[in-house]
Amino acid sequence: MVGIIDEIKPLMERFESTLVDIDPSEFVEVNEVVTHILTSGGKRLRPLLLLTAGEMVGLTEEHIFLACAVEMIHTATLLHDDVIDKSELRRGRPTANAEYGVPASILFGDYLYTKSLRLLLKYGNDRISNSLLSVVKLMSEGEIKQMLKSHSPDIGEAVYFEVIEAKTSCLFELSCDMATLLILNKDHEYVRACHSYGHHFGNAFQITDDIIDYRSYTEVMGKTAGDDFAEGKVTLPLIHLLKNCSSAEKKMINDLLVLDQKNSDQIRRDRFPEIVDLMHRYHSFDYCDAVANREIESARNSLKVFSDTVYKKSLISLAEQIADRRC
Amino acid sequence: MVGIIDEIKPLMERFESTLVDIDPSEFVEVNEVVTHILTSGGKRLRPLLLLTAGEMVGLTEEHIFLACAVEMIHTATLLHDDVIDKSELRRGRPTANAEYGVPASILFGDYLYTKSLRLLLKYGNDRISNSLLSVVKLMSEGEIKQMLKSHSPDIGEAVYFEVIEAKTSCLFELSCDMATLLILNKDHEYVRACHSYGHHFGNAFQITDDIIDYRSYTEVMGKTAGDDFAEGKVTLPLIHLLKNCSSAEKKMINDLLVLDQKNSDQIRRDRFPEIVDLMHRYHSFDYCDAVANREIESARNSLKVFSDTVYKKSLISLAEQIADRRC
Repeated sequence: MVGIIDEIKPLMERFESTLVDIDPSEFVEVNEVVTHILTSGGKRLRPLLLLTAGEMVGLTEEHIFLACAVEMIHTATLLHDDVIDKSELRRGRPTANAEYGVPASILFGDYLYTKSLRLLLKYGNDRISNSLLSVVKLMSEGEIKQMLKSHSPDIGEAVYFEVIEAKTSCLFELSCDMATLLILNKDHEYVRACHSYGHHFGNAFQITDDIIDYRSYTEVMGKTAGDDFAEGKVTLPLIHLLKNCSSAEKKMINDLLVLDQKNSDQIRRDRFPEIVDLMHRYHSFDYCDAVANREIESARNSLKVFSDTVYKKSLISLAEQIADRRC
Repeated sequence: MVGIIDEIKPLMERFESTLVDIDPSEFVEVNEVVTHILTSGGKRLRPLLLLTAGEMVGLTEEHIFLACAVEMIHTATLLHDDVIDKSELRRGRPTANAEYGVPASILFGDYLYTKSLRLLLKYGNDRISNSLLSVVKLMSEGEIKQMLKSHSPDIGEAVYFEVIEAKTSCLFELSCDMATLLILNKDHEYVRACHSYGHHFGNAFQITDDIIDYRSYTEVMGKTAGDDFAEGKVTLPLIHLLKNCSSAEKKMINDLLVLDQKNSDQIRRDRFPEIVDLMHRYHSFDYCDAVANREIESARNSLKVFSDTVYKKSLISLAEQIADRRC
């Protein structure tokens, strides 16, 4: 998805080598696995946002280290998410969960969290620590909330947005906060502008992810489609469908969501194509595309306070590319 | 196990009420589960060490908050450990893993980690942050190391001590560090003395735990005996046995440890009584008791620099009580 502009490439290369070299464990085996996990084909979106926004306000050496920290937090959440969701494929490759098992995924996730905190406390400042602590608290609360609200056919868009903001968007916000708060005070207009960009970028990104989980196929995505429905997660396409389908269809979907037996996930997976058909019929994908486009537009508008530099253009282009991966 | 002296009781009561009230989530459901998890019959050893050591050097309001932080870190590690070990009982009650499932255990563990970090950064100081970050890194490395070394019949006592120091003792050390570093510099003799006490206390505690996992029964412990062997963890009683049994017996144990099939855990569990018999025959428990007693003695000796107060006596008595739970 990501087309990195030439001006950022050398920075991203320094980020990549720092990411695997920094603050190694004294245990060789730990470093080997961590390097393998950290270099498993991530899109590096959060570091890219951080470094590009950093260039807009004035890049420092510390930006590189904070970019590593935010990618480690992101990787830690993926490791834990894959255990929770029992995912076997991510980015077209087996998940750490599938490759190393549940214990390793939990423990290496914990390890990466602590490693990122060390970096943040070493290279950040109080403004960044405070932003970080709110974010990681909100992230874990968002995941818990999503878990508690799974299988609830009656959640609406407001709760959906609360959940995606807590579990996804706030880490994009944090990436932007780190970029700006390293050198600016939190009430500076550039800080607010980048934070808002990160917020809307994150929303668009998660909505797109949720669309893809219904509209795509394994061959294209390297990700198993239908996971959300199988797990009973109620995301935007399903919220739209439930609001617009007939009452008989609604009852059928509700019954599937609240199923509580050993093989309910498989039953929902078997019925998945039917749900996708209904979403096409009721234009749920068109609706979700429009919501995501609105977020992309808001992300673009957030950057109005900045002059037109190559970095600003790159951030806008990154937001627009979210739409390209929608099917 | 713990007999709390009258001088500490009011402090422990304040700790208990602070623990469930502090820094609540805005999500009511999250608070309910967290309160349930935090009040599930923990022995509160780490807060007790922290507050008692705090009294020895000069107690402040902040000690209470740090005691909450260390108990939250401990609880977070238990939540993740129970998923990793697939434990169903802890302290005679179902684990969060058995009660709420894997996703909740992982997510509430993550949540408690972040909550404790917030407390530590708010009420601690730079000396405490540094101690904390080394400790949590070492703890997750220790767990990883134990996982990688599982099923290795050739690990010796040196590696065993590295693992228990990283996964257990360092959190007792941190409890003592927090008590002293709140008001003293890290090269003060009281800081070193309490750190050393925490270190040996933790070693004795973990060795005792490892003995119990072979010598006890579910009815007594509220904990399933034989877990370590079933999971192929090589702990002190087994290290002693492997070093002292006949080569035929050693081969039999090695073969069991390296078993790699779907039901290997169950096979090892079925053969468990045989292993315990061998441990009795080769005096493995006597040996381990002696090692643990040596650690208890070292813990006591660490406190020599302090005058004989009721708090010092209490810390010594806490260390001696470790021996009481050995069977």
